[in-house]
Amino acid sequence: MPLINRLAIIGVGLIGGSLARILRERGEVGEIVGIGRGEENLRRAVELGVIDRFEQDPVKGVCGADMVFLATPVCTISPLLARIAPALTPGAIVTDGGSVKDEIVAACERLMPAGCHFVGGHPIAGTEKSGVEASFSALYKGRRCIVTPTAATDEKALAKVVRMWEIAGSEVVLMDPVKHDKVVAAISHLPHMVAYSLVHAVADYDGCDESILKYSAGGFRDFTRIASSDPAMWRDIALQNRLAVLEMMDFFTTRYAKLRSLVAEGDAEGLEAFFAHSREQRDSIN
Amino acid sequence: MPLINRLAIIGVGLIGGSLARILRERGEVGEIVGIGRGEENLRRAVELGVIDRFEQDPVKGVCGADMVFLATPVCTISPLLARIAPALTPGAIVTDGGSVKDEIVAACERLMPAGCHFVGGHPIAGTEKSGVEASFSALYKGRRCIVTPTAATDEKALAKVVRMWEIAGSEVVLMDPVKHDKVVAAISHLPHMVAYSLVHAVADYDGCDESILKYSAGGFRDFTRIASSDPAMWRDIALQNRLAVLEMMDFFTTRYAKLRSLVAEGDAEGLEAFFAHSREQRDSIN
Repeated sequence: MPLINRLAIIGVGLIGGSLARILRERGEVGEIVGIGRGEENLRRAVELGVIDRFEQDPVKGVCGADMVFLATPVCTISPLLARIAPALTPGAIVTDGGSVKDEIVAACERLMPAGCHFVGGHPIAGTEKSGVEASFSALYKGRRCIVTPTAATDEKALAKVVRMWEIAGSEVVLMDPVKHDKVVAAISHLPHMVAYSLVHAVADYDGCDESILKYSAGGFRDFTRIASSDPAMWRDIALQNRLAVLEMMDFFTTRYAKLRSLVAEGDAEGLEAFFAHSREQRDSIN
Repeated sequence: MPLINRLAIIGVGLIGGSLARILRERGEVGEIVGIGRGEENLRRAVELGVIDRFEQDPVKGVCGADMVFLATPVCTISPLLARIAPALTPGAIVTDGGSVKDEIVAACERLMPAGCHFVGGHPIAGTEKSGVEASFSALYKGRRCIVTPTAATDEKALAKVVRMWEIAGSEVVLMDPVKHDKVVAAISHLPHMVAYSLVHAVADYDGCDESILKYSAGGFRDFTRIASSDPAMWRDIALQNRLAVLEMMDFFTTRYAKLRSLVAEGDAEGLEAFFAHSREQRDSIN
């Protein structure tokens, strides 16, 4: 018997499509219903065999599903749940793939009807590409998936969501939603804030008689690649994870200020120690 | 007749070795003398045909050379020139490849004996590898080389150094040494300071019950790769280009503070505009 009888995926793109592919490949899902706004993408998903059928109305789409996966932008997750909640089948489990958790989990738990269960999740995987064409069954293989239960989480629902991600090949880590948001603020959101600011600084610098951005070489381009990320998506992430992002931005400032004072003082020994500590820590994650 | 009769290269590594290779390949150099401390590396350079012979004593090595290329770490360039200056052949041109220019050019101009000429240079090229084994004749092809004449620079010496880099395949840009240092502070030194600080921030953050560095994924690793750069080299660069680095670090702080306030205020429109400006500028250099 497969783990899931009917899986409804709202948002059949890279994240949703890749989960559909691997669960089908492993024989762990009976039927997959794709839900989304773009009919063309949904038709393509059927042609590719990623989903069995589709609905454009999420309320219709989730009928009879024992597992619902919300794979849409972070700011749409709880509004979508508010719409589908009345249509959920008794016992249904709803989970998501949003990269911010505390606000989403709190809102979704409040919205769930009695007898249905919400479990927050965040598969740490992705590529530069998007859309169902970019999805592939190995996306989650060996990648971490953070699942964020709370005191209100149903144990059986939690176990089923964990099992689903394990089948997808992920290394599942359980984490409190608040801690999750701090971790991603540090390892993902802060680097984006820094990269966006860095491009501003170099592009806007007017201490020379011409723009200096054109002199940038490969190193700068590699380092600032993430500053080409989607502005609307990052606006939403910064808003949804505001407090953790601010905390990490301020923590960065303390370290940056330390380095600035070492440079200002011309402290050779201190500078070398600062850089050596970074290199050691950086190399520990290679 | 070749452009250079006898070329002395102090520091036969990636930078020095690659220049030797391309000049020989193009038939623009009579003899190449390699100078360095490591005998094994110098022997290998002879075996590889990169240099014709070597000297470990720079004073002996530069005898009779009409062009001397200093391809050693930034803090060693003017001390080396102080040693070799008395041994230079009348009419000899000395140039360098240091990534900081104002302090080096000023010191080297003071040290040059009458009738010999110093011209500062900075080929913007390199790979992660080092040593003569890593050198190759196409390293400079299509890459910018900034040459930094001053009011004191001899016109013929300048023309010969420019020609040398053009033969190497570089796009030569003439720039005031002070401006050069601001440009590289912005496009290279600032990103390194930011990356080093970012790794400190994430590694040192103690707001969770465990180290969060281990949760870092591919994006963080790519973004912080430059924080694995050699601590001693970056100590020297930060010291040699102290004022320009401080100016750019402080300029970055203004942009970072702007973004922080947009996050703090939850300014959706302002955040999207900030990120969109970065993306637009970043994409302009792709």
